[in-house]
Amino acid sequence: MIFRNQSSSIKKTNVISKDELYKIYGLNSYEFTQKNKEEIFVCSKDKELDLIELDQLLQTVGWSRRPIRRVKRALDFSILVVGLWKYDKKFPRLVGFARCTGDGVLEATVWDVAVNPVYQGLGLGKELMKYILKELKNIGISKVTLFADADVVAFYKRQGWTLEPKGSKCAFWYAS
Amino acid sequence: MIFRNQSSSIKKTNVISKDELYKIYGLNSYEFTQKNKEEIFVCSKDKELDLIELDQLLQTVGWSRRPIRRVKRALDFSILVVGLWKYDKKFPRLVGFARCTGDGVLEATVWDVAVNPVYQGLGLGKELMKYILKELKNIGISKVTLFADADVVAFYKRQGWTLEPKGSKCAFWYAS
Repeated sequence: MIFRNQSSSIKKTNVISKDELYKIYGLNSYEFTQKNKEEIFVCSKDKELDLIELDQLLQTVGWSRRPIRRVKRALDFSILVVGLWKYDKKFPRLVGFARCTGDGVLEATVWDVAVNPVYQGLGLGKELMKYILKELKNIGISKVTLFADADVVAFYKRQGWTLEPKGSKCAFWYAS
Repeated sequence: MIFRNQSSSIKKTNVISKDELYKIYGLNSYEFTQKNKEEIFVCSKDKELDLIELDQLLQTVGWSRRPIRRVKRALDFSILVVGLWKYDKKFPRLVGFARCTGDGVLEATVWDVAVNPVYQGLGLGKELMKYILKELKNIGISKVTLFADADVVAFYKRQGWTLEPKGSKCAFWYAS
């Protein structure tokens, strides 16, 4: 029986110089590529997001539109906002996104994890989550939570997330 | 068949004057009592919490102790922190607590809902949650979420919370 090491399909790239990487994507950026592929991807919490581009990305995954002014305020009050770009010297394209809220001390909650469907299945979501967990760990957060839609429950389970610890359930309340 | 109206056991009190209420518990306080009972309870997001008293309350519900300095920082970064006191002119006693994190725009998450076991079963938790949802609605939040422990799932269900909408599951990740 052969176990395919999923992480082996991803490797760090040396194509972009550190100077260029930091200049375009900021100091806390992380770039990677897939083995034998040419496309380079970069995660960053520093590079500013174009809100129109973000809105378009979220629409590719079928989410209902939210007023851009409210989204901007929500990002301002998030404790971590991460973009995932397909690298291009002139026109980096936003292909993934996620953000976290929380008290920044005891806990954080991950929201709005999205990868453009064209780029799904390449391991990008996994790299994005790894980047987020590392950043949260850096600020000392020991418990991270999220609400996983039914179709991505397996995705989080594979990556070591505990589902419904001790029988807990997620509960939602919508303002009328 | 008789349906007991649970909310009928709670009523607003007129025992405390508004001036006194606001002076002790702040402008956004809400006081109530149970029918035919003498004890008065007050919810408030304004009255400052004594962290030692909060620590003792959380211990009565069996939660593991957390360093008080970290708790203080977590409260500072929460978007809503609510105490529930048993009214006493001189020595109000903290008997309930809850707090919310979130971006304060699109969503909020309720954490650490606790009622001292001595005062459980009196409808206090329900009043505390009503107070929180009202405050969140006031700042325009339309979606509130929480992770319900197995033993309080029924409590939230009774109050109209949607459990695991569309098959979503809660996922937890703990820093190693």
